[in-house]
Amino acid sequence: MIRVDYQKYMDFCADACMRAGLRQEVASATAYYLVRTDMLGTYTHGSLNLLPYLKKVETGGIVRDARPEVVSEGSAWAVIEGNNGMGFYNAKVAMDLGMKKAKETGLSYVVVKNSSHYGACGVYAVEGAEKGFITLSASNVAKTMTVPGGKGGIIGNSPFSYAVPAGKYPPVFLDIATSNIAGMKVNRAKTAGEQVPPGSIVDENGLPTTDPNTNWALYPLGGHKGYGIAFFIEVMTSILSGGVVLDIPLWIKSMPTICPYSQMFFFLNVSDMMDPTLFGQRMDDAITQIAQSPKAAGSDRIYLPGDMEWERYQDALQCGLKLPDDIEKNARELAEWKDLDFQNCLK
Amino acid sequence: MIRVDYQKYMDFCADACMRAGLRQEVASATAYYLVRTDMLGTYTHGSLNLLPYLKKVETGGIVRDARPEVVSEGSAWAVIEGNNGMGFYNAKVAMDLGMKKAKETGLSYVVVKNSSHYGACGVYAVEGAEKGFITLSASNVAKTMTVPGGKGGIIGNSPFSYAVPAGKYPPVFLDIATSNIAGMKVNRAKTAGEQVPPGSIVDENGLPTTDPNTNWALYPLGGHKGYGIAFFIEVMTSILSGGVVLDIPLWIKSMPTICPYSQMFFFLNVSDMMDPTLFGQRMDDAITQIAQSPKAAGSDRIYLPGDMEWERYQDALQCGLKLPDDIEKNARELAEWKDLDFQNCLK
Repeated sequence: MIRVDYQKYMDFCADACMRAGLRQEVASATAYYLVRTDMLGTYTHGSLNLLPYLKKVETGGIVRDARPEVVSEGSAWAVIEGNNGMGFYNAKVAMDLGMKKAKETGLSYVVVKNSSHYGACGVYAVEGAEKGFITLSASNVAKTMTVPGGKGGIIGNSPFSYAVPAGKYPPVFLDIATSNIAGMKVNRAKTAGEQVPPGSIVDENGLPTTDPNTNWALYPLGGHKGYGIAFFIEVMTSILSGGVVLDIPLWIKSMPTICPYSQMFFFLNVSDMMDPTLFGQRMDDAITQIAQSPKAAGSDRIYLPGDMEWERYQDALQCGLKLPDDIEKNARELAEWKDLDFQNCLK
Repeated sequence: MIRVDYQKYMDFCADACMRAGLRQEVASATAYYLVRTDMLGTYTHGSLNLLPYLKKVETGGIVRDARPEVVSEGSAWAVIEGNNGMGFYNAKVAMDLGMKKAKETGLSYVVVKNSSHYGACGVYAVEGAEKGFITLSASNVAKTMTVPGGKGGIIGNSPFSYAVPAGKYPPVFLDIATSNIAGMKVNRAKTAGEQVPPGSIVDENGLPTTDPNTNWALYPLGGHKGYGIAFFIEVMTSILSGGVVLDIPLWIKSMPTICPYSQMFFFLNVSDMMDPTLFGQRMDDAITQIAQSPKAAGSDRIYLPGDMEWERYQDALQCGLKLPDDIEKNARELAEWKDLDFQNCLK
């Protein structure tokens, strides 16, 4: 585990993108969202993946020169054709447009179809909240989840996130998938020779198992509840936008394969509806009331959604961003591939 | 178990409301939503509760003559002061206004503060979908749920629902609470001398238990996930509207007590964004793909969200609405109290 200067590391990531032939604005959006995701502690969806993303660009699985286009819009909504370019930049264009519209109408919905993987949805929600908007984001994903009564991958365990600005506290935010656990955790349990918790996966017959060595599929959060939410995300991302519905390849499985994810963004401009200072106070009061509630035996703290992430974020700001070994390894490989100086990023 | 003519039974419920002194439009909205909720099979939140609602009206816990007022609005949103009147009528006013706004701007958000209990949120989402809108509704509720690290009731297990219009199929819809199981199921297990499934509740120390005889609190769906969603519902209902945050009394516990629930409604006008016939086809394709997926061992069908509810609805339309014994008992008591003819409703 090393620590890097997050700003230098962001520049490093942006430089890598540019040497892979991405335009400057695409490179900087990609670096910004990936490194911020690391800073919030969501390492599985941050700069760890920059190496495979750029391999995907190299092999045509992400279209290098793509430019997103608004293909239809109203005062409070827009559909963007992503042209299979970098998901991070498509997301940035959607974010900027959505916030602009929400400033005019109070709320907005923007969806990008035919994009590519856009990392962790939480990083977008957080940015929206920092700018004064109650923000939601969600993506459809590859069909790695079964549904009650089924077997095999039937729908994506599509993630969604929200973030809400507060007053003296940082935004409250949540970034979750609609399965009980993440697929990566099943793979880790397999490698470690461990079982997964009951309810996490089903076997090749669609029956509950705790054995990650089966030909498993993820099981939805709470059964019909997570399934129902995942279906709604499919509606709000791909079905309503005219994007590719359900059949999204897993982006990391085959580098040259185009993976046309759809992603949605929703904004509500708080200051349209309530004085933002008052809203912040009301948020702070709710936060305080929950945090000061009686604790369970053995617990000394109640976390608000996002608390853990913001603690990691503060640590990264103050002491430098911790990079786990697998990210350092990928960064060094990237440095070698693109002839960049990673050493310079170290704290 | 008896069957009633749903239309006659709706009239019966409306008559009961009017004899309790509610205005005609309040009576008909209340009867409509309650009986439709029964028709969809959500008996716990339907006409079973009309008797206690009217006792609440009688004792001042719901304000008989209240009129909802729009207290602030923009082109795509509105905040309604419910003046603690009947939640069903406040909801109807919010629904009508929200759909009107969504026709103009594409999407809308309407929230009612200081309302009262509004039954099952699914019935509103379904109505919106039937009229061509992707619809969400949610309510904050009494604090019967703990959160990870806490003990006792800290937040409501606030329910939310969505419904989406389809083509040849009925709307896909989901109506769920943010706890793992409903409080009523815990009470039923207690009465029956049974245990509840692991993960459903915590005991008075905030520790997991399966024993409903403890001083239990509900546990959130998937722990931090359900907690995070419940917090978001609190934001979108009470915090943003200026309503009462977190501290809502349980409506049925004390009849004279005002219970100022806040409820939100979100609409997206499908036809603004896509030809509704095409959208319906895209929905039908997704539905068909999921329903025709491989089945788990021992399963012969995959249900779409809402399938079971629509089957009950069709049965009620065709053969009459089944009323379980507890609802029949309440209806007969209501008939006696308000001097109405319940017998006339029977099939």
